[in-house]
Amino acid sequence: MRAARMHDYNQPLVLEEVPVPEPGPGEVLVKVAACGVCRSDWQLMEGYFRSGVTLQFPYIPGHEITGHIDRFGAEVPQHSGLFQGDLVVVSAGWGDGTCRQCHEGNEQLCTGTGGWVGFGPPGGYAEYVRVPYRHLIKVDGDPRPEYLAPLTDAGLTPYRGMKKLQAAGNLGAGRTVAVHGIGGLGSYGVQYAKLLGGGATVVALGRSHDKLAEAGKHGADHAINTRDKTAAQVQEELRRLTGRPDIDAILDCAGTESLKLGAQLLAAEGGMVSVGLMGTETNLSLFSFVSGERWYSGSFWGNHNDLTEVLALANAGHIHHTVTPIRYEDLNDRLEALARGDVVGRQVLVWD
Amino acid sequence: MRAARMHDYNQPLVLEEVPVPEPGPGEVLVKVAACGVCRSDWQLMEGYFRSGVTLQFPYIPGHEITGHIDRFGAEVPQHSGLFQGDLVVVSAGWGDGTCRQCHEGNEQLCTGTGGWVGFGPPGGYAEYVRVPYRHLIKVDGDPRPEYLAPLTDAGLTPYRGMKKLQAAGNLGAGRTVAVHGIGGLGSYGVQYAKLLGGGATVVALGRSHDKLAEAGKHGADHAINTRDKTAAQVQEELRRLTGRPDIDAILDCAGTESLKLGAQLLAAEGGMVSVGLMGTETNLSLFSFVSGERWYSGSFWGNHNDLTEVLALANAGHIHHTVTPIRYEDLNDRLEALARGDVVGRQVLVWD
Amino acid sequence: MRAARMHDYNQPLVLEEVPVPEPGPGEVLVKVAACGVCRSDWQLMEGYFRSGVTLQFPYIPGHEITGHIDRFGAEVPQHSGLFQGDLVVVSAGWGDGTCRQCHEGNEQLCTGTGGWVGFGPPGGYAEYVRVPYRHLIKVDGDPRPEYLAPLTDAGLTPYRGMKKLQAAGNLGAGRTVAVHGIGGLGSYGVQYAKLLGGGATVVALGRSHDKLAEAGKHGADHAINTRDKTAAQVQEELRRLTGRPDIDAILDCAGTESLKLGAQLLAAEGGMVSVGLMGTETNLSLFSFVSGERWYSGSFWGNHNDLTEVLALANAGHIHHTVTPIRYEDLNDRLEALARGDVVGRQVLVWD
Amino acid sequence: MRAARMHDYNQPLVLEEVPVPEPGPGEVLVKVAACGVCRSDWQLMEGYFRSGVTLQFPYIPGHEITGHIDRFGAEVPQHSGLFQGDLVVVSAGWGDGTCRQCHEGNEQLCTGTGGWVGFGPPGGYAEYVRVPYRHLIKVDGDPRPEYLAPLTDAGLTPYRGMKKLQAAGNLGAGRTVAVHGIGGLGSYGVQYAKLLGGGATVVALGRSHDKLAEAGKHGADHAINTRDKTAAQVQEELRRLTGRPDIDAILDCAGTESLKLGAQLLAAEGGMVSVGLMGTETNLSLFSFVSGERWYSGSFWGNHNDLTEVLALANAGHIHHTVTPIRYEDLNDRLEALARGDVVGRQVLVWD
Repeated sequence: MRAARMHDYNQPLVLEEVPVPEPGPGEVLVKVAACGVCRSDWQLMEGYFRSGVTLQFPYIPGHEITGHIDRFGAEVPQHSGLFQGDLVVVSAGWGDGTCRQCHEGNEQLCTGTGGWVGFGPPGGYAEYVRVPYRHLIKVDGDPRPEYLAPLTDAGLTPYRGMKKLQAAGNLGAGRTVAVHGIGGLGSYGVQYAKLLGGGATVVALGRSHDKLAEAGKHGADHAINTRDKTAAQVQEELRRLTGRPDIDAILDCAGTESLKLGAQLLAAEGGMVSVGLMGTETNLSLFSFVSGERWYSGSFWGNHNDLTEVLALANAGHIHHTVTPIRYEDLNDRLEALARGDVVGRQVLVWD
Repeated sequence: MRAARMHDYNQPLVLEEVPVPEPGPGEVLVKVAACGVCRSDWQLMEGYFRSGVTLQFPYIPGHEITGHIDRFGAEVPQHSGLFQGDLVVVSAGWGDGTCRQCHEGNEQLCTGTGGWVGFGPPGGYAEYVRVPYRHLIKVDGDPRPEYLAPLTDAGLTPYRGMKKLQAAGNLGAGRTVAVHGIGGLGSYGVQYAKLLGGGATVVALGRSHDKLAEAGKHGADHAINTRDKTAAQVQEELRRLTGRPDIDAILDCAGTESLKLGAQLLAAEGGMVSVGLMGTETNLSLFSFVSGERWYSGSFWGNHNDLTEVLALANAGHIHHTVTPIRYEDLNDRLEALARGDVVGRQVLVWD
Repeated sequence: MRAARMHDYNQPLVLEEVPVPEPGPGEVLVKVAACGVCRSDWQLMEGYFRSGVTLQFPYIPGHEITGHIDRFGAEVPQHSGLFQGDLVVVSAGWGDGTCRQCHEGNEQLCTGTGGWVGFGPPGGYAEYVRVPYRHLIKVDGDPRPEYLAPLTDAGLTPYRGMKKLQAAGNLGAGRTVAVHGIGGLGSYGVQYAKLLGGGATVVALGRSHDKLAEAGKHGADHAINTRDKTAAQVQEELRRLTGRPDIDAILDCAGTESLKLGAQLLAAEGGMVSVGLMGTETNLSLFSFVSGERWYSGSFWGNHNDLTEVLALANAGHIHHTVTPIRYEDLNDRLEALARGDVVGRQVLVWD
Repeated sequence: MRAARMHDYNQPLVLEEVPVPEPGPGEVLVKVAACGVCRSDWQLMEGYFRSGVTLQFPYIPGHEITGHIDRFGAEVPQHSGLFQGDLVVVSAGWGDGTCRQCHEGNEQLCTGTGGWVGFGPPGGYAEYVRVPYRHLIKVDGDPRPEYLAPLTDAGLTPYRGMKKLQAAGNLGAGRTVAVHGIGGLGSYGVQYAKLLGGGATVVALGRSHDKLAEAGKHGADHAINTRDKTAAQVQEELRRLTGRPDIDAILDCAGTESLKLGAQLLAAEGGMVSVGLMGTETNLSLFSFVSGERWYSGSFWGNHNDLTEVLALANAGHIHHTVTPIRYEDLNDRLEALARGDVVGRQVLVWD
């Protein structure tokens, strides 16, 4: 089969022919239909995750996977409800099932020996991939694979983050919720702000005119270009647009200086959730956070039920996509464009 | 001023001329623009609340009040932000501020000496009413009074109930939420099911074809007429309409045999919240509730922040009304129609 | 091996010699050291669960199991962390891993094809039992098996129930929490009321002088014998003992008329959680539940993490036991004594 | 009366004779029995709060106030339940009652025109103080004033912080909770870690041998002196003492480099709550917080119900004090000792 593989860090992927893998006893062989191309794939190649993730070269990246079931390992039980030919997506958090996090259903947070497909177990930049049957979710309807694949990360990660803001009581009527950074994740994020906001005003914050325009199409009530603006200037613009200078809930999809700016925009009792990972540190004003009971939390990917919910939203027609299908041959070029910030929405590798 | 007063239980209101009241030191005199007519007004007249509520006859009912500020008592502080002529609504839970519930902001649940306007302190079936300044909320925009008044109970009570279902995690994508009983409260309830549902499927349950049709206009995805149907028959209809025979979240706006039926329709981990008060008892299957961790909760009216949120939703155009303005002269007739179940949506007394 | 088996409903167990079972690929064979004897075993034999649970006769009951690992099926992975000879307890909720409840970690609530050991899969009234490796928890220290076995249900179920009361905010300083029914579960329940109560006053409610005395030893601040008392009389006694006539949180471990009484004792915003299953129905006053926002919930057994927490409490010496070891030969006699209500604390079958 | 007043920033208090104040219509005149001396009083004098708090010189600081009711303003209602001579404490968050925070009962977070006694309205470094009746809480029993006064801040602030950790699910059996910084607040904090911990292991972290010893007396299971230690060294010590290198819940009572160290010690899903205010900034590792879903929150003082709960704990004998009574004449000396870090526990000004 064709596969795009890393032979070392900081090198282009090598597009090569490799044997089709055999599924283990509890595994399923999936014929990949589409695989999303994520900024974190580029970061993996650059070594950003080097301290936490161990790879065996040559390695096949790719973690936003959809495809059809090709065949089953010997021990996949009948109650899995899966059949040959089924269209499935891959839930990417492969916990080992032994730790507290796994037993909460948060396998993506496994503190045992678990990992994530595409960051350890071979991923979806190939024609076939092996997946433990428990991590497959059968898809209803007949969606286009390039729309389905990104739902497993770009469409999932901001959903979980937005649910944290909702669960904390920071959304709702009369509140302002912002999505900060309108890339692959953020263009889904603004939609979740609308869907889960309960009537909250939705603001998109970003530095690219084109991406902010995309956010408007996806339901943002207002968009503010923060490039070269001070916090005071953004507050002034917020006041003009929303009647208030501050924000109750921020989903940060960037992880850059966006975090410092976001923290300065938070209202009393406001909360900021990070899903973006471009930088390394979050700096918060101690007095502001204590005296106004502001809060900050990370949110990581999504668990099996989160993904089921995102698929239900998509199946009901609630999710709009900004997706560009790309060809296998163009993978290296497109990864570079992504790293430069030149991509609006999500690129998805589609097999013919 | 004109006022409609109870002189005893189980008698029509007496429409009569009485002196305009004087506001106390911390009170505001409000010129009533509109006052909603609630089924609980009829119940008050019938003596349903006799054991819990003490009235001094002759008594002016009416608790869904909107109007304009006429004048101020001597001790109303400037930071109230209120001015003569302001359009205001009355938050009806007048706690005494000393108990735990009041200190949580839930004055409608006051376990001290507090009460509710229209159920103790004289209400809004009159041209003027005295209100402690803390219970007035200034209204933005220029809404029609007949749309504003019902928001303080019919539009508020199901909102708080729906928030309880949301906070418990029973709403969201892939879930089914039902509003049971589509009268004055339920026709707002289906809208909140949509607004707070996060993509959940919304089902209206009721026994009147006209009211269920109204629910459809307000956003219910499906409507099921439960009249003369067994639980099994309703489950079958649910399966046909939603793909599932059960419901994750029920807002009961009736309080009749609806409760028994609702409990039988609940999915595992499902929850039912009661706001309707037509009956006297709730019967739940012990084994079903224990083995499936089902739950049941009452929800009562709404607090100050709940009402602020409902007003924000209305101001943003998210709420549609089914309201019939009625005249002072017709109050007794219209109360009787309401008691017979002959009213779709809400009737509102409007002063000229 | 020796095994006590049901050959039909409403018959004594047959004590007989049967072959030692073979573990399947992902299973572990456990040599049973002790197995708790639960009132629900008697109910199983009587057919109480007949509509929900399918048994293949002859059937081995017993769901509170501890023992040592004898040997492994072929596919038990190394990351299980289990070794031959390990002392383990069995987490009894064996979900199929496919439904939302399983993916939340609540396998005991599985709505797929899952079940519970001792209520479908053969249980622990035998010298050996087969257990899927995922449902074994290794035990630290060197506890006595008769203390360990009941922790998997009698010591687990009230823990989860108490956590629901805690999570809902009904415990804490200045609050009153009651455990209603002081049998096998309730004598653990009062301890959790202390451990999780955050300073709340703990009241034991029951109808047996001996059992209430036991509750006092386990930390209840007060005990009230409710036999032949009206709700008003119990309220009066509460007022004398606690300064208040009502209760903020009730864990009902009986499921009898206790439920009706408990509901009448609830304070505003009070909650009652059911874990006891002796009766069939819960009747609640509609007006009381709505106007005071009271709530009611079932709670079922416990999940893997709940059990881990209970074991941690036991290992730290926080749990006291009221346990009577019994012999295999006496099983039928002791089940009858249990059904009569003649047992204080928990009986545990101990193998020599 | 005698009063210790600020005449400007960065100057000693002037001890002088001033007129006894007159209570306003809704106010009560309290004869101060004791007033706690808080590090934030020193910070107020130094100008730390200058940007957020406006003072009118000469100004009387002091916000941990207990005393007896001397007399009433004309409009204090009878339902206040207060009588002349009553022993009361002062709830220090004096909101204006108009904002969302006030309507939630969190007046200490008021975003309107509200303030805090001792940081705007004249405080308790005097023989008499005026207090709006709503902010007085009557005290049961006959506690010593020097034990009562600090409960309104030093004993309250860590309680609210610990409740946030509890509500987030970070406490409980098998978890580790740490209190970081064992000064006036932290010596109460370790007690709340025990009371609310539900069986969690309690660790005290600090840099003073004497203060850590105090923590041990108040119930900490372990104490670690972090002075001159790296995060790795502290992790190693944690592993030795608790079996784990990390912590699930941290209450930071310092606000210094403690924050950076604490963040490095957090387990997956771990949370840190700040109540200490000695520094200015919190720096968190972005990847660690996102990938492990760690979280951070400020917590500010406490609201009326929080204080009621703390008083209930004290009344039940659950709280131990480390208090040094000081004399009015020594105020300036003792404030300097406090600023140097030379005080174990809390100093309290006691009037004879």
